[in-house]
Amino acid sequence: MQIDILSLFPDILKGPLNASIIGKAINRNLLNIDITNFRDYSTNKHHNVDDMPYGGGAGMLLQPQPIIDAFDHTQQVAKENDISTGRVILTDPAGKKFDENVAAELAKEEHLTFLCGHYEGYDERIKQIVTDEYSIGDYVLTGGELPTLVMIDAIARLIPGVLGNKGSAADDSFSSGLLESPQYTRPANFRGQEVPAVLTSGDHQKISDWRLKESLRKTYLRRPDLINYKKLSKKAIKLLAEVKIEEE
Amino acid sequence: MQIDILSLFPDILKGPLNASIIGKAINRNLLNIDITNFRDYSTNKHHNVDDMPYGGGAGMLLQPQPIIDAFDHTQQVAKENDISTGRVILTDPAGKKFDENVAAELAKEEHLTFLCGHYEGYDERIKQIVTDEYSIGDYVLTGGELPTLVMIDAIARLIPGVLGNKGSAADDSFSSGLLESPQYTRPANFRGQEVPAVLTSGDHQKISDWRLKESLRKTYLRRPDLINYKKLSKKAIKLLAEVKIEEE
Repeated sequence: MQIDILSLFPDILKGPLNASIIGKAINRNLLNIDITNFRDYSTNKHHNVDDMPYGGGAGMLLQPQPIIDAFDHTQQVAKENDISTGRVILTDPAGKKFDENVAAELAKEEHLTFLCGHYEGYDERIKQIVTDEYSIGDYVLTGGELPTLVMIDAIARLIPGVLGNKGSAADDSFSSGLLESPQYTRPANFRGQEVPAVLTSGDHQKISDWRLKESLRKTYLRRPDLINYKKLSKKAIKLLAEVKIEEE
Repeated sequence: MQIDILSLFPDILKGPLNASIIGKAINRNLLNIDITNFRDYSTNKHHNVDDMPYGGGAGMLLQPQPIIDAFDHTQQVAKENDISTGRVILTDPAGKKFDENVAAELAKEEHLTFLCGHYEGYDERIKQIVTDEYSIGDYVLTGGELPTLVMIDAIARLIPGVLGNKGSAADDSFSSGLLESPQYTRPANFRGQEVPAVLTSGDHQKISDWRLKESLRKTYLRRPDLINYKKLSKKAIKLLAEVKIEEE
């Protein structure tokens, strides 16, 4: 996958993009990420990229020219490499909710361009190049860099081959529709807190039932909206009934 | 405000924490952020921090010892500096929804500690030190670093004095309950797209009415759930009625 990021703050992006799963995906050639600082495309002699809003008001708005010209450049490079135009994503609190389903859908694309806005706003006309506006949550951030990183992280781990162990992505919260059950590792006793006995019993059926039940319990208590009753097995329905009685 | 971050990946955090608004808040001594790599607190001779899950399964889980010992250390430092224990935040897809109201609440705290998990999971017993579990959205990320950065960014800009212009935070989406109206800056004509004439009219009342109406329109079309009818002025109610007719 080719990802282009148009941003005024490449230094925010570099550390996170080199680390962890995204860095591994890049090293394995499953992902290529290019950051373009659209300040370099400003035709203004001082390389300004923002100006005051028409009609007055506080704050400076990003102008359309540097962004659109930077985009024309990244599209030209993509074309020369036989890469499709792809989807162009703007992060905005007014956008559609970005969630795991959107991440899975975007993970299938050949080319994504992320446009990083700025907390004081942007000229509405930059939207002529935008195909999708997403919000990662109901909070205001100072720029589009962090939401872009969040989206790329969520997307990158779903690109086939990126997570070493295929089991890992499928087991996670949301992939199955249920939250994960509590997990434990060594030591068996940590400052007086013991690991639940069932997990050290060696009885695989019991362990699997316990995990399913605790997963149902956590989801029932915290995010009942995530439970898709049609997708539950007969055993899950029985265990969920037990959970409901126990938690009443 | 004192913020402690317990993380295995300080390199992810450094760029974003030095940039933009967070960096300014640090430079103005409104915020101090210390990153503690809990690998340094592992008592294991290889400095391991994770181990296999009890009961079997894929992935390695973070062990409680390095995290809790690192936390004991940051708390000791806080105590020596007369800083309260504060709230200890774990980012988890199963946590409560982090939103602008939570950010505003956390912006009033003296001390926050963020615990960065890892996508393969952690030992449930680390929760003995956790006061709050938050999720920034319904998607799975590879670690707690990006959601921690998102939360700190949303919180930092609400700390009094951090945003230069007090008007800026109050005007943003969510603060007023409405999404922002479209904004425009120079040039007046960009590749054939004109700025709406009202914004260059010089008529302040007309501009203010246009902005309120477009703000209501965007919110009505995209996020009707955000409109708090009790808080709308008489004028806003009239303009919203017009919007509803126009959009039918």
